[in-house]
Parts: sequence; structure tokens; C-alpha cells
Amino acid sequence: MDRARRAQDAGLACGSLQPGRFNSITDIPGVRVGHRTLNDGDIRTGVTAIIPHGGNLYREKPVAAVHVLNGFGKSAGLMQIEELGTLETPILLTNTLSVGTCCTALVRHAISSNPDIGRETSTVNPVVLECNDGYLNDIQALVVAEDDARAALDIASSDVAVGSVGAGCGMSTFGFKGGIGTASRRLEIDGQSFHLGVLVLSNFGRSGDLRLPDGRIISPVTPSSEPDRTEKGSIIIVAATDIPLSDRQLRRVLRRSGVGLARLGSFWGHGSGDIAIGFTTGNILAHDGNADLVEIRILSEQRIDLLFQAVADSTQEAVLDALVAANSMTGRTGHHRPSLLDTLATLSGDVSQ
Amino acid sequence: MDRARRAQDAGLACGSLQPGRFNSITDIPGVRVGHRTLNDGDIRTGVTAIIPHGGNLYREKPVAAVHVLNGFGKSAGLMQIEELGTLETPILLTNTLSVGTCCTALVRHAISSNPDIGRETSTVNPVVLECNDGYLNDIQALVVAEDDARAALDIASSDVAVGSVGAGCGMSTFGFKGGIGTASRRLEIDGQSFHLGVLVLSNFGRSGDLRLPDGRIISPVTPSSEPDRTEKGSIIIVAATDIPLSDRQLRRVLRRSGVGLARLGSFWGHGSGDIAIGFTTGNILAHDGNADLVEIRILSEQRIDLLFQAVADSTQEAVLDALVAANSMTGRTGHHRPSLLDTLATLSGDVSQ
Amino acid sequence: MDRARRAQDAGLACGSLQPGRFNSITDIPGVRVGHRTLNDGDIRTGVTAIIPHGGNLYREKPVAAVHVLNGFGKSAGLMQIEELGTLETPILLTNTLSVGTCCTALVRHAISSNPDIGRETSTVNPVVLECNDGYLNDIQALVVAEDDARAALDIASSDVAVGSVGAGCGMSTFGFKGGIGTASRRLEIDGQSFHLGVLVLSNFGRSGDLRLPDGRIISPVTPSSEPDRTEKGSIIIVAATDIPLSDRQLRRVLRRSGVGLARLGSFWGHGSGDIAIGFTTGNILAHDGNADLVEIRILSEQRIDLLFQAVADSTQEAVLDALVAANSMTGRTGHHRPSLLDTLATLSGDVSQ
Amino acid sequence: MDRARRAQDAGLACGSLQPGRFNSITDIPGVRVGHRTLNDGDIRTGVTAIIPHGGNLYREKPVAAVHVLNGFGKSAGLMQIEELGTLETPILLTNTLSVGTCCTALVRHAISSNPDIGRETSTVNPVVLECNDGYLNDIQALVVAEDDARAALDIASSDVAVGSVGAGCGMSTFGFKGGIGTASRRLEIDGQSFHLGVLVLSNFGRSGDLRLPDGRIISPVTPSSEPDRTEKGSIIIVAATDIPLSDRQLRRVLRRSGVGLARLGSFWGHGSGDIAIGFTTGNILAHDGNADLVEIRILSEQRIDLLFQAVADSTQEAVLDALVAANSMTGRTGHHRPSLLDTLATLSGDVSQ
Repeated sequence: MDRARRAQDAGLACGSLQPGRFNSITDIPGVRVGHRTLNDGDIRTGVTAIIPHGGNLYREKPVAAVHVLNGFGKSAGLMQIEELGTLETPILLTNTLSVGTCCTALVRHAISSNPDIGRETSTVNPVVLECNDGYLNDIQALVVAEDDARAALDIASSDVAVGSVGAGCGMSTFGFKGGIGTASRRLEIDGQSFHLGVLVLSNFGRSGDLRLPDGRIISPVTPSSEPDRTEKGSIIIVAATDIPLSDRQLRRVLRRSGVGLARLGSFWGHGSGDIAIGFTTGNILAHDGNADLVEIRILSEQRIDLLFQAVADSTQEAVLDALVAANSMTGRTGHHRPSLLDTLATLSGDVSQ
Repeated sequence: MDRARRAQDAGLACGSLQPGRFNSITDIPGVRVGHRTLNDGDIRTGVTAIIPHGGNLYREKPVAAVHVLNGFGKSAGLMQIEELGTLETPILLTNTLSVGTCCTALVRHAISSNPDIGRETSTVNPVVLECNDGYLNDIQALVVAEDDARAALDIASSDVAVGSVGAGCGMSTFGFKGGIGTASRRLEIDGQSFHLGVLVLSNFGRSGDLRLPDGRIISPVTPSSEPDRTEKGSIIIVAATDIPLSDRQLRRVLRRSGVGLARLGSFWGHGSGDIAIGFTTGNILAHDGNADLVEIRILSEQRIDLLFQAVADSTQEAVLDALVAANSMTGRTGHHRPSLLDTLATLSGDVSQ
Repeated sequence: MDRARRAQDAGLACGSLQPGRFNSITDIPGVRVGHRTLNDGDIRTGVTAIIPHGGNLYREKPVAAVHVLNGFGKSAGLMQIEELGTLETPILLTNTLSVGTCCTALVRHAISSNPDIGRETSTVNPVVLECNDGYLNDIQALVVAEDDARAALDIASSDVAVGSVGAGCGMSTFGFKGGIGTASRRLEIDGQSFHLGVLVLSNFGRSGDLRLPDGRIISPVTPSSEPDRTEKGSIIIVAATDIPLSDRQLRRVLRRSGVGLARLGSFWGHGSGDIAIGFTTGNILAHDGNADLVEIRILSEQRIDLLFQAVADSTQEAVLDALVAANSMTGRTGHHRPSLLDTLATLSGDVSQ
Repeated sequence: MDRARRAQDAGLACGSLQPGRFNSITDIPGVRVGHRTLNDGDIRTGVTAIIPHGGNLYREKPVAAVHVLNGFGKSAGLMQIEELGTLETPILLTNTLSVGTCCTALVRHAISSNPDIGRETSTVNPVVLECNDGYLNDIQALVVAEDDARAALDIASSDVAVGSVGAGCGMSTFGFKGGIGTASRRLEIDGQSFHLGVLVLSNFGRSGDLRLPDGRIISPVTPSSEPDRTEKGSIIIVAATDIPLSDRQLRRVLRRSGVGLARLGSFWGHGSGDIAIGFTTGNILAHDGNADLVEIRILSEQRIDLLFQAVADSTQEAVLDALVAANSMTGRTGHHRPSLLDTLATLSGDVSQ
């Protein structure tokens, strides 16, 4: 596990807003993250779980939304979020071919706390998002098991490891080793302190296109063995906030995650499944509510630019966070991804890194 | 103006829910409707205005939504409603080629009450929807003037005329004379009485496809002179309610207006611009609000089937209301549309009608 | 397996267009359907496979589209179809909680024919749709295994069983026993004979709302034991054609499946995941094509009303086909669904059925 | 009129692809652009016309698409493009409150060449897009007349003026004087030379956020008199190509215009109506076609990244083109916008500019 370094430590902070205490998606009270990493030989994969709050998610559903930047991907559970504007399971991230297994794991997880599912009440909508780690990982081996998903859920805490961990184990970004990254921003709304945080599973970007916040374009020193520069990756952006929003407002916010990606040098390539999903703990809807009419709070639309800026900055920085935290890796059939920090050290002549 | 008869008087009530007092969109407190009818020789057209409440709409915006059943149409102002979930002008209905003129009229109408528009504050989003009355009306004459739109706005009241009035003057429906119709349903939510009402500008349906609530298929006795049975019309469905809803919930409700059309025998033909727009006076958002966070009420999603049923029934009945109220008409170049009631009387041998 | 009877045999044909030879989705050349039925005690479920053509689907992708009538559902694979307009696996239907298992089965099925998936070429998008059979089936048992999905794929043929088979085993419709149904229409386009066919997994509709083509409203004679009349089901509509269409045109066609449901008495209830998916074998796009520019044929939009009518009629009839074919069933914890034909026989005093 | 300077002359070229001969939307054969500028005292507005080809557009409709980046805007005609995937009039750009007038002008323009509109054939869908020039222009004066729109159409040629011309007369961008800009890229597809070009009506961006291609952040030296930094503008992006595309492919291309805006420092602010519209002359559909089936060519999706890159680069550069070409302006009530080039000259100490 790589966790010593963060993007801000490496001088790669983005934007002018202040980060939260941990500069992490877990700055939103109640949010927890857990990883299960499978890292051995040709196997470089895993599962990452994001749990929105500490209660029974099926019974207490956060308002949620989705924005598809480029839909060349295999994520599950998005349709119901778009229809109903709520989330009712944790979010699991994994490799592309393990979505089915993680769906089943979430179903069993929900039933274990809610034995009336599919009997006295409705069924449950598992939410699983994915990237293709097939360059470093033997993705055909389908090694991720339901127990791995359960392990990621069980271990979740407010302390988030970043880099080549969990679903991020075998991921690549702009020709470098990618993985999991996170960032957050603290926002003053109505005289109170709120947060918006992002966690990314970063596996996108063509080698040679990465642009740092200071404008430098950085390529891997040793060119990758890939024959072409096609963008084949993907990125999953999970945004969380405790600011009360409607699902429409949240969707508007999520759309601006694309700004963060564009600043990094991406144009949301054809082959890249770029998906943003978000939830707010500021509005929770009850599964079993008796009231016909429910009070919620929403943000004055006049203030939403602040959140647009926060999500763009946090997405940009979370990707850099993954790049900074991930060590170089040689995986399946000798495929190699250098680390960004090694490359930056080489470029600056600093051999101590 | 034809107003003696309503669909329920003719035995064409739809569904099992109770109508409101006037069985009209104006059963929603504050909603007013006005018509300007241009009915002379080859000119068979007009403007209909729906005003959501009695205040300054630009300053107090009702939550609103849109659902496009078939987008072969020229309506204006829908994009901003989809982005922001609010309405800030009255809704005008007119013929297809007069949308531009009615937009400009709404702009002037908004400026007259809000002289800061485009100067100290933002601009305004005029909402105009349309059907093609070119069969009975010389639509190329472009006779609708800004003054006509203003007249419809000025005359608006809670007393709604139906049939060949306002924008409905020259419209056709299933080969019969169509026009404006309305219906409403009274709904108990949380122990309180609310309403959902629909007003239609009905100009859709192929001759020979009309199905009455009792299952009878009714065709014009004298076949129309149209050479083919292509569905060339359109229908605009305006739904209003005082039930507090989010824009997402309202969009789900609007989608079910298509059920009402299908029951009438339509399959939402290629050439028919079938558009539903709706607003709720149960949630009003302030243009100049100072609060960062705003409380709204939304409906428990468990109760929304009641509204789905109400909008399907009301849409179906509002079309029949237009058909029942409209007398036969001979318009441009001798084009003729018989009235439904005349046809039903002929079929039943009842010559007294 | 129930296959003796079809909707047309029972006098429940819909619309005026002619059916294809088998009145089945397999009237489209190359389309095959297979069922794996799990029907024992509390287990009333299964898998149904629809295979668009006899070649390698991953290499030769049919143009495809999706329309979500009501997104309260858990289907997988829709996002990529919406982005790219193509299908690259068979379509599997199953119960709601078995989507994950069927996804994994499709992944393995695709890899077995395409060992370069996730290694030298991209990954694969499994398409699985579902309804909730929990009223008759012990859905929590999660009995569907990957082998069941494989069995449905292996047994697929042009001979389609209908009723309580495959994924349809435990489904309910308007309070009656539902399941799998199919219908097709033969269409003349450009002097050639084409087909449009529909297969439904029918599990929707409130008891008491079913309307037959002749206008009769039919309820189960013995009221179901369900305490309320909430629409909790779902329907999956799979449409196939050999008419060359663009994905946009196909999506327009799919939208009209909702007309068929509305004619049956549904208003696409809140709790019902009503999803339409379709493909055309008239346009196949190569995974490995070398050409930069590809010729396809599309339909003149002027002719598309014919397909709108065909899909509305076929959807309506396919649901009736499922109802006619399905025998009554007593499943989990004694839950019972009567058959439509038994009820009709009772109503007509005909006790011989 | 300002036309001496282009972005590339000022060292502000974007990306690595080669521009077309004129580096203009008119590099696409047949495309013409015309401006009508109203520039006097408090009046700083106008109309810009983009004409896709030299034939009868209503009879020969280019395949077209729309992508709404942020729908806080008042554009007309987008719904039908989304439904049918074609354009049937020229595109007009103007100020926000003049959309209605320009719609009516386009209706008359279409009728003049097609006297059967609304009589023997269907109606026509005018396409008008807008930005709010109210900072420099007295937008409430509603000075744009139908004759102005007609003048822009009549004068259209392949020679495109840029800067403060046509609809761009009173526009602002990142606190500088904005307006009309254009750029194009030459692309090799299937061994042939094609082009993709962009024209922008640029009126977006907060003062202080502009980022040049070399990474410099540039603010107006004299701060604008605006009290806050809210993004109140808008940008209209018109993309044209002769590469054969489907409407779905074109929509995917248009989405990447947002990448160009993000590179410039925008996050698609709440108040900014950011709309992309595009057409291809590579696929023209006949209004009166007799064939039931029509052959079109589409791009292999494997090559679409090239177009994504081209539209991102062209959009970015077209905005800079507007900034470079526009001289400083003092308009309504003394409101002032400096020119970018003056500011750059001041910053570099070069007083000769």
C-alpha cells in the first residue's frame, strides 16, 4: 500500500479553495472508504467501497445523481438513480469484468441488514462502477470474489489509503501508474461549514497528454510498450457532500467534474468510460416514511458556482493525488507503468527520490 | 366561442378519480387562462395564455418540468426549464409560425413588470408552445401580433373557455374539429385537498383512430379531404398542480400524459410534436432570495402513482373536452372539420343535436 | 412448459397489421431464443436468452437502442448502448437479484469466443434485464447460477416457448400469472418484406386494470392476497427488426412500446421498471473494421409511423400472449396467481377450459 | 469591423492539428457566414447567420445535433434537431431578447423559397441561438428587426469577419471584449481531406479566469466595474464538418467543445448558457425523398478521437480568435471592456500596440 504522499505534498494542489481537514472524501461526516487489494504476479486488481453514512442505507437513502461524461463503460445501478434520485447501497469500484460479482455481493450485503428485501418490500439496486485494468492485471482471470467485496465493505473507515490500492491496484493514468486518489474542499454556506469531496478511480488519459497545474506537460520517460496512443482507460468520479441539494442540483455539480479532467489534458476519449456519481448526506429520504409530504432543503442556485469550482478543483487534484501516491508497477506479462514522482525526479535531476 | 358542453356532460368522463369544482386547470388556486381568438375567413388561429399565479412570475418562479413525447415541434423556452427546474413567464400557446412573435410579446410583458431585466439582473426565458393549424388556418399569413398575445394575457381569468378558442381556433383532432380542452382531479394528500389539472391544445391523431372511453372507435362520417392518414398534428399538454413536487417528480408525472394519448388511439406519430409542460404552485423559488439554503416540500414517492393516474385521466379527458366543445368548422380553401358531437348524433340517429 | 396457446388463438390479436409466420421475435432471420426454467417448490425463476444473430456478436455488433419508460429497475449494460448505439452480447433476462450472476456468465461466454477480450482488445458489455418475481419465487435464494445462463444460451433456437418459462417462470401480470410472450408484424418497405418482433418478460400491471383489445376490463376472480394495489412489477420489452435503422430511429420506435402498455391498462406505475431495448440486424458494425467510413442504410423518416404502429401492437399482443400461455401457479409460501384463460372461462360460464 | 488579427497571428494557436486554409468554419465547402452589426451609442448588438450549404436547406437537410453544456439560455429550435437529427434553416445568432424576431425572420425566409410550407407540406423549425450582451448593449431596446436578420442572411459569404461583428458586437469574454471567432482543422479520413470548423459567439468567462495556451492567467488591467465575479455570460459554439457522421456521432463530437472551454479557464458557470450545435454536409437528407431506405455514410467510431481533439482545439482557439480580433469598446452607460491585445501589450511593456 502506498500512502506516504499526497498531491498537495508534491506541490500539485489545484485551485484556490481550502481543502478539508483530511483533504479527502471522508471529510464529509459519516463517509467511509475501504479497500481490498489483490496484488500478486499477474493479478493487480481489487475492490474499493465507498459508504455514504453509518446507518442502514437501504432504509435511509441519500439523494444522489449521475452524470455520464462518456458512456463507453459497464457500470451498474445508474438507471434507478436517474429515475428516483437516491442511492440505497454503498458504491463499489472494481475492474470491468468483476461488476457482476460485486453486484451480487451488494445484494447479499443489503439482504443481511434488510431481510424483507424481495419479500415484504421491494428489491435493491446495487451500484458498481469500474475501469479496465487489463494492461497490468490478468482481467480474464476474474479473481475478484464476493468475499473480496465484503472485505472492502467491512474494513471501511474514515482513513483513506490512496495510490495502487483497492480497485486502483492495476490502473494507469496518462501512461503513468494510476489508482485511487481523493481531495476535498471546505465551503461556507449560510454561515456554516460544509464539505465537498471527490474520490477517483483513475485509469484514463493518453501518454503524453498530462498537464500539471503549472502548465508543464509530462510524459513517461520510458515510453510505454503500447503501440498506439488511443485513450482506452476510464475514470470513475465519486463526489460526496453534506450540502443539501436536490438531485438536479447534484447532477449539475457532477457535470463539472469534466472540467477537472479537461484541465489535466483529457478530451474524454472515445474508449474511456468517464462516469461521475454523487450523493449528499444533506438530504436523506426514508424507505418506510409515513408522511405524504417531506421537507428537504436545497441550495439557492445563486450559490452553486462555488460547488462547480469545488468539484472541478477536487477532481483535478484527486487524479494528481492518485498519480503522486502510486509507485511504479510491473504487472501482467511484464507490462510496466512508471510512477509520476520518479519521472518528475528524473526530469529535475533529483535522483534521491 | 363554444362553451356550452363539456366532456363529462357528454358521458365521456375518464377514470375513477373525482374532478375538481370546475373540472379545469383553474381548479388549482391562482391559475388563470386567457384566449385571443382570430376567427374570420381563412384566418382560424389565436393565442392562449396560462398564468400560474397572480404574483410577479419572474420574481416568484414555480417549480416546473418538461417531457417531450415526440420532439417534432417548435416550442420555445424548454431548455432552461430542464436545466433550472423553474418557470418565469406565463405559458403562451399559438400556431407554429407565430412562436417568435409570442416570445417577443412575453419578453416585453416581463420587462414591463421587471424593468431591471437585462440591465441589473439576468434576462428572461419566454415559454411558447405550438401546434400547426395550417389545415383550417392560413398559417403563412402570420397574423398573430404581439398585441394578440398581450390581449390573451390581459383577459386571463379562472373561467376557462374550451373548444375552438384561442390557439385552439383552427386545430383538428382525429379528423374532427379540435382545440382547447381541460380537466382536473381532486386528490387527498396528507389529509389535505389538492388538485392536478390539465389544459390541452389538441391537434393530433389520425382520422379513424379515435377511441372513446367505452371502447368505441369513431371516425368522421364524411371523410376528410386529406389524401393520406399521416399524423401531422401535435398536442400540447399543460399540467398544473398545487401538490409540492420536485422538478424530477413533476417530470415523472408529465411522462404519464402519454398514457392518456395512447388510450385515445394515438401512437405519438412521427409528425406530431407532442409536448408536456407542467408547474407546481406548491414550490415557488424566489429570484432575489437571500438565503443560501431554501426549504421545499416534496411528495413521498410512494404516493406518486395517484398523480400518474390523475394526469393520464385528465389528459385523456381534456382531449375529449376539446372535441366535445368544438363546433364543426370550414376554414381555409374550404377545408372542413366536423364536430365529434354531430358525428355521434348522426351515428345514434339522434338528429336533435 | 406451457406452449399450446397463443394470444391470437384466444381471439386477442392486436391491431390491423399482419403477423409474421411464427408471430414471434424469431420471425426476424437469425434471432434465436432460449429458456432455462427453475420451477420447483418455492423456486419459480429462470433465465431467458435472446441472441440477435448466428455470428460472433462481439465482432459483428447490431445497431441497438434503449428507451427507459420508468427507470425503477436494475438492468445492466444500457449505458454503453446509449453511447455507442450497438449491442455486443446476447440479451439475458432473469430475476432482479440474479443480474450480477448473468453479467458474469455473459462475460465468460464472450471470452470463450473472443480470447483477446481485456487483453489485446477492449472489454465487453454484458446486457442483462430483469423483473422481480419475488411474489411467487424465493428471490432471496439467489438460485440462478452461471450454468443456468449458459444453458439458456446453448439451447436457443428459433422455436420460442411462451408462458411460465425461462425468466418468465415466476412472473405476474395484472394479478394473473404472467411470463414470456411474443408477437411480430410483417412490414413492406421498399418493395421488400421485413419484420419487427417483440418478446416481453411481463411482470407488471395492477390487479383490476387489465383491458382486453375489445374493451373488457378483466380482474382475477379470486382476489390476490396482496394487501394493496401498488404496481410493483416491471416489464422488459425486447424488440428486434431486420429493417435498417439508425440508433436514433430505433429509439423512437422503442418509445412507442409504451403505447402498447397503456392500451392494456397500465400507466407505467412508480414501482414498475419498464424498459425497452431493441436491435436491428439490418445494420451490423464490425469490431475490427479497417474502413474509416462505413456505409449503412437508414429508413426514410416518412415511413417510421409503420414501425411505431407495429411496435405498439406487438408489445400489446406479446403481453396478452404471455397471459394466455401461462397456467395458474401457486408458488412461494402459497402465493397464487390464476391464469387469464381460466378466469375468462369462468366469466363466460365455460367450465371446459 | 475588426478583422486584421487572428489568434494564430497573436501566437495563440491551440493544439497540434493543422488548420484549414482560412482557419475558419468556411473551410467546410459550402458554408457561408454573414453579419449584420448594429453599433451606435448604447446599441451594441447584431445578427450573425451561418448557412450550411448553397442549396435549399428545407429540401436538403444536413444531419445535425445539439449538446447543452449548461442550459441557462433561450435558444430556439433545438428540440426538433434532437428528435430528427437534421437542420432545415440557417442558424442565426443574436442577443437574448431578439430570439423571437429572428425566429420569425427565418420562417419568412424559408417560406420565400418554399411556398408550400404550412400548406401542402409541414412547417419549418427556425434555429436561433443567443447570448446576453446587456452589459455593453441596451438589450431592452429590442432594436434587432427582421430586416437585420435578412441582411445577415443575404450578405453571407465564405469570407468571415471576426471580433465585434454581427451578434458579437456587444459581447464580453473573461472581462475582455469578446465577440465572434472561428477556427478549423484539416483532417485526413480514409485517404481524403476533410475539415471540422467552429464559429463561436463568445460572451462567457469570469474576469480573472482566462488562461492562455501557454498557461498564463490574464486579467483586464483596469478591473471592470462589475461588482461581482459571477459568470453571467454564455457561449454559442457552432461546429460544421464535411465528414460523414450520424447524429449520435456528431453529438459525441459536440460534447468535447466543453473541453476547449475548460482549457480556457471556464467551469461552465451557472449563469452561462453554453450551447453547442453542429451539422455535417457529409450527410444530407431529402425532404421529399421517395426512397423508403436511404444510404448514408458514418465514421468508424475508432477514428472519432481525431474529431474530439479537433473540436476541443478549434473551440479553444475560436474563443481566443474572438478576443484577439475585438477592439476595446465603451458601450451602454459607459460600460467598458478592454481588448485582450491591449492588455497583453501593456503587460509586456510594448506600448506600440
